[in-house]
Amino acid sequence: MSGAYGANLLSSRVPDWLSRQRHSEQLAIAFENETWSYKKLYERVGRLAGFFAAHGVQKGDRVALLARHGLVFAASVHSFIQLEAVLVPLNTRLAAEELAWQIQDAGIRLLVYDDEHRSLAMRALAICRTNGVALLSPIELDGVHWDEQVEPIYHDAIELSAIQCMIYTSGTTGRPKAARISYGNHLFGALGSALRLGVQANDRWLTPLPLFHVGGQSVLLRSVIYGTAALIQAKFDPLQVNSAIYNKGATLVSVVPAMLFRMLAEQEMPYPSTLRNVLLGGGPAPRTLLETCLAKGVPVSQSYGLTEANSQVATLSLNESLRKLGSSGQALAFTEICIMGKDGPLPPYQEGEIALRGPTIFAGYDHNPVANEQAFRDGWFYTGDIGYVDDEEYLYVLDRRADLILSGGENVYPAEVEAVLLAHQDILEAGVSGMSDEHFGQVPFAAIKVKPGSVVDPAEVQAFCRERLAGYKVPRKIVIVDELPRNASGKLLRRELSKWL
Amino acid sequence: MSGAYGANLLSSRVPDWLSRQRHSEQLAIAFENETWSYKKLYERVGRLAGFFAAHGVQKGDRVALLARHGLVFAASVHSFIQLEAVLVPLNTRLAAEELAWQIQDAGIRLLVYDDEHRSLAMRALAICRTNGVALLSPIELDGVHWDEQVEPIYHDAIELSAIQCMIYTSGTTGRPKAARISYGNHLFGALGSALRLGVQANDRWLTPLPLFHVGGQSVLLRSVIYGTAALIQAKFDPLQVNSAIYNKGATLVSVVPAMLFRMLAEQEMPYPSTLRNVLLGGGPAPRTLLETCLAKGVPVSQSYGLTEANSQVATLSLNESLRKLGSSGQALAFTEICIMGKDGPLPPYQEGEIALRGPTIFAGYDHNPVANEQAFRDGWFYTGDIGYVDDEEYLYVLDRRADLILSGGENVYPAEVEAVLLAHQDILEAGVSGMSDEHFGQVPFAAIKVKPGSVVDPAEVQAFCRERLAGYKVPRKIVIVDELPRNASGKLLRRELSKWL
Repeated sequence: MSGAYGANLLSSRVPDWLSRQRHSEQLAIAFENETWSYKKLYERVGRLAGFFAAHGVQKGDRVALLARHGLVFAASVHSFIQLEAVLVPLNTRLAAEELAWQIQDAGIRLLVYDDEHRSLAMRALAICRTNGVALLSPIELDGVHWDEQVEPIYHDAIELSAIQCMIYTSGTTGRPKAARISYGNHLFGALGSALRLGVQANDRWLTPLPLFHVGGQSVLLRSVIYGTAALIQAKFDPLQVNSAIYNKGATLVSVVPAMLFRMLAEQEMPYPSTLRNVLLGGGPAPRTLLETCLAKGVPVSQSYGLTEANSQVATLSLNESLRKLGSSGQALAFTEICIMGKDGPLPPYQEGEIALRGPTIFAGYDHNPVANEQAFRDGWFYTGDIGYVDDEEYLYVLDRRADLILSGGENVYPAEVEAVLLAHQDILEAGVSGMSDEHFGQVPFAAIKVKPGSVVDPAEVQAFCRERLAGYKVPRKIVIVDELPRNASGKLLRRELSKWL
Repeated sequence: MSGAYGANLLSSRVPDWLSRQRHSEQLAIAFENETWSYKKLYERVGRLAGFFAAHGVQKGDRVALLARHGLVFAASVHSFIQLEAVLVPLNTRLAAEELAWQIQDAGIRLLVYDDEHRSLAMRALAICRTNGVALLSPIELDGVHWDEQVEPIYHDAIELSAIQCMIYTSGTTGRPKAARISYGNHLFGALGSALRLGVQANDRWLTPLPLFHVGGQSVLLRSVIYGTAALIQAKFDPLQVNSAIYNKGATLVSVVPAMLFRMLAEQEMPYPSTLRNVLLGGGPAPRTLLETCLAKGVPVSQSYGLTEANSQVATLSLNESLRKLGSSGQALAFTEICIMGKDGPLPPYQEGEIALRGPTIFAGYDHNPVANEQAFRDGWFYTGDIGYVDDEEYLYVLDRRADLILSGGENVYPAEVEAVLLAHQDILEAGVSGMSDEHFGQVPFAAIKVKPGSVVDPAEVQAFCRERLAGYKVPRKIVIVDELPRNASGKLLRRELSKWL
């Protein structure tokens, strides 16, 4: 039955995505007041690739990028693709020691940085030198590397099994691990997302998420695969995000709950109909937030994703947002979800570990056989997250396993307790974690941020929780704080809550 | 660099597409006044598969379907997928002898027909028996095969390299050949089309094209891959197509030029904004038709496709319809186009044979090594069609090679002459072919259909052409006819024009 003629399956080499768009005058990318068409992006990416090559970047090299968000960052991402180098985007919030550790761990051959991060880059490289690790001379980006005198460099095809980047996962426990993301991961992630969210010629996908994480970077790659526009921002600012929705035709927006809360707080008028979907990732969304969006007519889709799946795994369709409120939706077209118990797959409604399979799943952690053997079993990737599916295969994510509070033999999911706290009229943000307890092993405690102008009494909040939660889930202790610990993506870092104990 | 962990590339087995939609209440398919949700389609397809299995259909069997268009036809297509049988949809316009030839050629094990085609089916089977070819007892469809007592049958995964159907190509020369279409062809065709045309949750793809050809059948498969709706019709009727556009929310419509001419002639008011794209296939479109659409605000996309590429190869984006008028657009995302000359690939603007590569290209002709060796060379499929690409890789299809008129050493492309004839105010349809000539080898002649109420003088038409064409391209003879010969897809059969000589 198999064909002797024709290429039935996708060849592992496909024509370069950016090259396919190179004649197009359509908007490719916008930052602040600058806009580039695909034609312009293609030309500049080629010249930037020529510039990097002249400074020693070769095919297969691992190159670290430590730079502010902007067009140069985005063009660099595409240039390394043309050079077939492996990008390791560095989190600009890390300390020099942490950066040096990643640079060494990833086997970086060359560091690219910008003036804003010169001092940080130099300190990190000094630590590497002290440790006897030598790199090529670092490259400082100054924003003008598309000199007409540089010979542009383009590759002609993409090898789908090749690694486009390695991204260190925020990792709730232990040392960060480098997740290897392939071109195939990007392609099938983009296609699966397109089938769930739809894709339109006029799409402009806005991401205030960091470009050094999968959530932001995948928007850059997807836009090129689709031939649509990416709107990027220096950092999250609710006014700027709202402005891009009101004035710049953003059709899709990727955010996490904490961002969406602030956008809604600053909203001056209903969002225009050009905004067709707010993709809400970064952990289980508080129900109050989803309900507020429904009431305000904000088209929000709860989404579940993680670095190891190159972002999106499942997303709730807009037309299901009422019927399946609280669900992260069904798996995207090229991803399979299985809820695993101790003895294998579990039936609907039973809680277990979320396992994933398919061409969107990453190519494993770099040089970390122990982590890979723990994470991959029988072709399934075990996420460490806890959830269940209903009888229509809609996923409900309960929590990150690492955050699970085990209290007197009962499981307490911080997200559930946080959702109750957020329903309190005076609480703006909440984080819940476990604290040691002689009797129960662990008990939950909460850190809360109070709404401006409000005053709360911890005892009253506990009473509020007691009315809504089983006794063992009520925070034993409530601390009022100015700011909750979050990573650069805005994801709550629950393990850091213990500093207030 | 390749991953020891994770599945970087698309596995050759993917979860069944229809099964992915089985909980959905969204519209799956509509015919006349009946509409089925995905839930209903899934249930009925399973029961129909059980019915066919009970009548002997097994995995790998080749099953012929000779039936009118409708929900039973569509459900049958999906049922054979569940049974992993190979569908051979038969053209209901063929004579019994032609059908018997295809049934024998394809190695059909079982024929499924409906009451409307009972007599034709019986005559074809009688011929097979005379030739000593025995089949299982044929199955007559009566429209009620979703009896609750039948145990539904579903498969759990799709093997992408497996053959979903074999479609006999209309073949401008020689015996028809069975083109083997794989599931991978459908998947990558669907994805490439989605990236070019966009895909929206509310999409309703209307096809008045025959479901026994790729143009119609691919709409059935794509809709299931997307989770959107297919609107099918018994046969082409301009009023019914317009009615579906006005009243049934058709967002996409697949037609050929002759159909679009008639739809526009019957148009009572501008099409509503729900109609976002009229996909115009079936050969080079007359420029006058494209210009009329532009003037009337009809969103038309010229498209180039053929059976061997499972329909769409290239499609012009709507926003390019003015700038690239007359082009069929760039290749879809997963298809490569190369214009081949005698010595290999040709530069832009040079005319040559259109060759194709990629996962949308069919799995070869069934048991026809000679045809396959002619058609496939160095991984490229040679279409036999003539065209060129411009310096931005936009394809311009000039003609079917088999229709090329060689006149005194000059090439005459019938489509070019037809376009001029169609620009004449009194001509409704035109077909041009070659006739023997002692002096020039061949010269063009034309058959024309005159607009209702008009009278034309062939000499005046020749004068009209002479003003617009080189002398050797002017039809030597013009015949006025009532109807031009077309196949079931509405494609002009130029070789049949000679009957008027």
